[in-house]
Amino acid sequence: MKKLLLFGLGGCALFTVGILIGHFAIQQSDTDTSPVWVPEISQDVDESFIEKFIAEVDNMEIERNLKELTKVPHMATTKGDEETVQYVLKRWQDPTSGLDQAWREEYLVHLSFPDKNQKNSVKVDATLLLVTEREKNYTSDQNDPEVVQPYAAYSPAGHAKGKLIYANQGKTSDYEHLNNTLNLTGTIAIVRYGGAGRGAKAINAAPFGVIGVLVYTDPGDINDGLMSDLNETYPHSWYLPPSGVERGSYNSQFGDLLTPYLAAKQDTYRIPKETITGLPPIPTQPIGFEDAFKLICELGGEPSPESWHGGFNCTYNVGGPGFRASSIFNNSDVKMDIYNKEELKNSSNVMGVIRGSVEPDRYVIYGNHRDSWVHGAIDPSSGTAVMLEITRVLGKMVKEGKWRPRRSIIFGSWGAEEFGLIGSAEYTEEYYTKLFERSVAYINVDISVFGRYAFHSSVYDNWLQYFNRSSPTYGLIPNVGHLTGAGSDYAAFIHFLGITSMDISYTYDRSKTKARIYPAYHTAYDTFDYASKFIDPGFTSHQTVARTAGNVLLRLADSLLLPFNCSDYAESLEQYLQVALDNFQEELSKHGISMDPLKSAVLKFRLAATNLDRVIHQSDFAKETPYKIRRINDQLMLLDRAFLDPMAFPDKYAYRHVIWASRSSGLATFPGLADAFEGAKNSGLKQDWSKAHKHLSIVAQAIAGAASTLEEVI
Amino acid sequence: MKKLLLFGLGGCALFTVGILIGHFAIQQSDTDTSPVWVPEISQDVDESFIEKFIAEVDNMEIERNLKELTKVPHMATTKGDEETVQYVLKRWQDPTSGLDQAWREEYLVHLSFPDKNQKNSVKVDATLLLVTEREKNYTSDQNDPEVVQPYAAYSPAGHAKGKLIYANQGKTSDYEHLNNTLNLTGTIAIVRYGGAGRGAKAINAAPFGVIGVLVYTDPGDINDGLMSDLNETYPHSWYLPPSGVERGSYNSQFGDLLTPYLAAKQDTYRIPKETITGLPPIPTQPIGFEDAFKLICELGGEPSPESWHGGFNCTYNVGGPGFRASSIFNNSDVKMDIYNKEELKNSSNVMGVIRGSVEPDRYVIYGNHRDSWVHGAIDPSSGTAVMLEITRVLGKMVKEGKWRPRRSIIFGSWGAEEFGLIGSAEYTEEYYTKLFERSVAYINVDISVFGRYAFHSSVYDNWLQYFNRSSPTYGLIPNVGHLTGAGSDYAAFIHFLGITSMDISYTYDRSKTKARIYPAYHTAYDTFDYASKFIDPGFTSHQTVARTAGNVLLRLADSLLLPFNCSDYAESLEQYLQVALDNFQEELSKHGISMDPLKSAVLKFRLAATNLDRVIHQSDFAKETPYKIRRINDQLMLLDRAFLDPMAFPDKYAYRHVIWASRSSGLATFPGLADAFEGAKNSGLKQDWSKAHKHLSIVAQAIAGAASTLEEVI
Repeated sequence: MKKLLLFGLGGCALFTVGILIGHFAIQQSDTDTSPVWVPEISQDVDESFIEKFIAEVDNMEIERNLKELTKVPHMATTKGDEETVQYVLKRWQDPTSGLDQAWREEYLVHLSFPDKNQKNSVKVDATLLLVTEREKNYTSDQNDPEVVQPYAAYSPAGHAKGKLIYANQGKTSDYEHLNNTLNLTGTIAIVRYGGAGRGAKAINAAPFGVIGVLVYTDPGDINDGLMSDLNETYPHSWYLPPSGVERGSYNSQFGDLLTPYLAAKQDTYRIPKETITGLPPIPTQPIGFEDAFKLICELGGEPSPESWHGGFNCTYNVGGPGFRASSIFNNSDVKMDIYNKEELKNSSNVMGVIRGSVEPDRYVIYGNHRDSWVHGAIDPSSGTAVMLEITRVLGKMVKEGKWRPRRSIIFGSWGAEEFGLIGSAEYTEEYYTKLFERSVAYINVDISVFGRYAFHSSVYDNWLQYFNRSSPTYGLIPNVGHLTGAGSDYAAFIHFLGITSMDISYTYDRSKTKARIYPAYHTAYDTFDYASKFIDPGFTSHQTVARTAGNVLLRLADSLLLPFNCSDYAESLEQYLQVALDNFQEELSKHGISMDPLKSAVLKFRLAATNLDRVIHQSDFAKETPYKIRRINDQLMLLDRAFLDPMAFPDKYAYRHVIWASRSSGLATFPGLADAFEGAKNSGLKQDWSKAHKHLSIVAQAIAGAASTLEEVI
Repeated sequence: MKKLLLFGLGGCALFTVGILIGHFAIQQSDTDTSPVWVPEISQDVDESFIEKFIAEVDNMEIERNLKELTKVPHMATTKGDEETVQYVLKRWQDPTSGLDQAWREEYLVHLSFPDKNQKNSVKVDATLLLVTEREKNYTSDQNDPEVVQPYAAYSPAGHAKGKLIYANQGKTSDYEHLNNTLNLTGTIAIVRYGGAGRGAKAINAAPFGVIGVLVYTDPGDINDGLMSDLNETYPHSWYLPPSGVERGSYNSQFGDLLTPYLAAKQDTYRIPKETITGLPPIPTQPIGFEDAFKLICELGGEPSPESWHGGFNCTYNVGGPGFRASSIFNNSDVKMDIYNKEELKNSSNVMGVIRGSVEPDRYVIYGNHRDSWVHGAIDPSSGTAVMLEITRVLGKMVKEGKWRPRRSIIFGSWGAEEFGLIGSAEYTEEYYTKLFERSVAYINVDISVFGRYAFHSSVYDNWLQYFNRSSPTYGLIPNVGHLTGAGSDYAAFIHFLGITSMDISYTYDRSKTKARIYPAYHTAYDTFDYASKFIDPGFTSHQTVARTAGNVLLRLADSLLLPFNCSDYAESLEQYLQVALDNFQEELSKHGISMDPLKSAVLKFRLAATNLDRVIHQSDFAKETPYKIRRINDQLMLLDRAFLDPMAFPDKYAYRHVIWASRSSGLATFPGLADAFEGAKNSGLKQDWSKAHKHLSIVAQAIAGAASTLEEVI
């Protein structure tokens, strides 16, 4: 599960750290009569320490980490996964460069695997076998017996036989379009990745009578159209070879599916499997474009709309249903035999901590998943390699007695992310209250480097040049995205727990490639060889990410005043409000629904944020009590929590943040309101307008409540 | 709404304050080189100040407060209510004895009133009118035109005519018993107060075909059998005169009914009225025992079971249905004409604060409702009179610059409690996050004095003598009850917000009277005259409550270390666990459900509590940093919050505390588990055993999560 974000951040913007730090160092008393703890508690972030940290981050160490982590395939709960558990534990328990403590936490979780003894297969007419067991071998990696057969995790086992149709990206609108002219009952749909979530492609299909779904990666979407493995694709370039298949979870919610809102321990209550929602109801299987090409370009029926066409040199006919009469397949059916099995398996998180010196009960959390689909050099090991380099440098400083953070730092190496962010979600369920009360922020670095994108200057200058926005307050500034989805392990932290979160990665130049994601994603080609040749030769981009993420981590852990800027939050709310007013106000007012409470709430928030900023800038922290500093830090730290409402999205599992929750609407505004408004607009039903009114009240109340936490505390 | 509790406390026990305080005063530096704030932040509670406070609390001031508050009837949102708003505001804004700030907060809430122009009536045979407009006048109070006609708030308007039956307390089991021999369809039930909630009496009745319910106060339950107003009842004693009627809300949840989980502001979304649940589905009306006697002792049919008999000198026949043939009413029907109307009305809370000096972002909240049914001398004005005396004494100290609490104190004078704890519930909805993050405790003093009960010695000694328990740790100690219901405004604080709460009152000697509650409760006899003659002549019991509640308040506000003892919480959990094991383990194990996770969780909690106690007792707070003190205080303050689970009780509005939530089961143990177990035991259905398993997981996870907040913070 991934979502592309250059730098995504939910919550207070962090990019003003450079502005905030340094202003508030408390004047230290140097007499003996002052309590001994006065100097320590007044210590601000040490810029020279950050410089030292940056200097120590070593690209060659990251390369070594990556090589070790990617020796063998390490899909969740396999032998290879256990080897990475042991490796991370060994590193974090190292006597000279480890953390204060490291341990393993296990959850018994519901996973889905192909059957090793009975391979999934897709056939045309019982003869042409389209799905091979594994991708074609170029380096020895693809020959490892532990390479899992490409499959759609959580697709049901089953047998489907029917005429083929081409259904573009498997969106509901795609099936509706076909349904206008074709009878889809009993057909098998082939769809390309993109446009809709993996599981959604099958969920959308079933109501139209479709009985099976094949999903493939179109070379137009991933390879800038290149298709030949003779010279165009890996190992000749970063492009995906014809036999490459994107594996993935076809589950559409996060966390263990059998234990909603409960940590999946041995004896935990599990819901009946048949009550799980959001899974493909019909057999589903991913295939490579080598196979997809053979099918799609043989289809009969009308040519599909131009926008449905990908990189194949054919007209992407929609299907008769089935193949054209002149095809080598003539009138053949496509037959899918899927043998996936669901199993309860023990999955491990590895946890490590550095205890804070002054505020050990304030946590800065840094995490990434450890499990991959195959070797996972980029996803997720590029992130783990970076994390291990950060912990090596910091661990060494701690072991040498040279440094200890003001606040505690928790590192999490999550298990079973690929199946649905399971390890991180179970962790947040098990320690909900503790994390809720004490977490300053969560930093996620999953895929740390998506591609080559040479930095000509500083991270800041590049950021400003390539990913910027125009702020009413600051003018042109680096943009910080919003974490509105569930693309990686930050989801449970921001959406379920309301912890200010950041997802950091180094991406590629989208003006130079149209690739949806790096081409080897979730295939047997995502290897150390691939990473070191085509993603980051020399590992300097990894080094840049380690330095940047570590820099953020250290400022969050060591700054006297937390580097959060709440006026930036107000700016985001004002932008959301403006979009909402422009798009909804007139129509809502026709239905007797006033947007005034939302307007007042955003204004109240803006005033409170401005006031808090004023208090911060006018305070002489050198003379203030620790309780005042803690009070303001708590206002900043807990701000995102104020937007949680466990009743806001009864249909969206574990989404509680009313500002950053996922939305179906394309409008960048309050998600519950936008979706409810569009629902009402479509149906015209009174109860749907009531839902829009309800969401308006929910979001207005959340914003007003958040504003009241920023006001003078009493 | 009231529940009798001598001293009820949810959460950490407060009675160990005497043990905890005094140990941890930080040694104060007296040099000039130490930061100026060091002495102030190290200041512990000042015992001499508490003594001064206790000395200043004046019984005559309380009497004057009560007289002023009870001049006129002040039912929620009436003119009389507004007068009390003005009075409380005037007192809290007084320049010499007021608070730092006081203001009003309004909510637009859904209330139910009788129609002034069309009186509710109950007739036998269209002639004998049983419900008079008002109680008989003894003092001039009952003649006030603002005395509201007795009614069942939220009973629907409607007309019912049918044969009468006597249904004891209106429990489901009572109707089932009758249903064995009688056809209840089309009947009107007369039931006595007690045994089941007000609204439940009608909700239970409807499925049996009953079309109307009369509710009366039996002299056996309230008057120790006395019935004559010539010499036995008020104004001759504290007993209820024959025409007295207990009004009340027949709504069974708390908070504004139209705005669940949202503060009831002008433009807030309101659910359709017809979707409200928990209200009487059939017309319901309370009557006095004068009228009830005439009905019940004329009934035909069989005598009811002995346990159904109250104070009337007759056999409480169940009804033919209807009257006996020899009755003066012969075969007459009873006819109910109910004209109650529901209205949206503005209800006010009055809020006041004293800002804390060191930790203004920590709130100790003290509250009581202001609205009554009639004059409400005892309910609620005895509590408000006490609150105003506490604020007078503390306000004066603040205005004179002699004292300022370490933490902030918030006073709340809630509106519309009688209709369903509405003012306090809306307040907690509007300020949820702020209160969640910062509240140390909520103290509720509603009815401060229930009756005469002379103290022979100290409060502590009396408490020990009359309301004690045997603790495995301490031996015989004063008992602290549990706030498992929703009897007063503490409900939203403890159940919805997980704030440690206490409900304080002075009760009467239950060995001397069997009265269910003080007899004038919710009648037109609950007047200043009644209070000063029969409840607390001289107001010394009120004074004792003011001193006790103020003492608790000051220790919560001023102690360096919060006076909470978490090992006592462990003791409660162990007692709950033992009851659960004794009653559920064998049967659960037969259904493959292990109680081990619950056992481990309670053990983990015990060990963590013991460890935290050890840390506290071994700490030399004089040398510790303010951050350590705050850290431990946060562990104590937030402990109750760890037991919140918004998904635990989907059918119980706003109940989120998995330990103290209300339960139907008679077993004093984990409520969700107990109720689910009994449900499964009754139905034998597999899905009901699954529910029991689920609740076991919910409570085990909550306890384990709470334990982890008490452990070393990292």
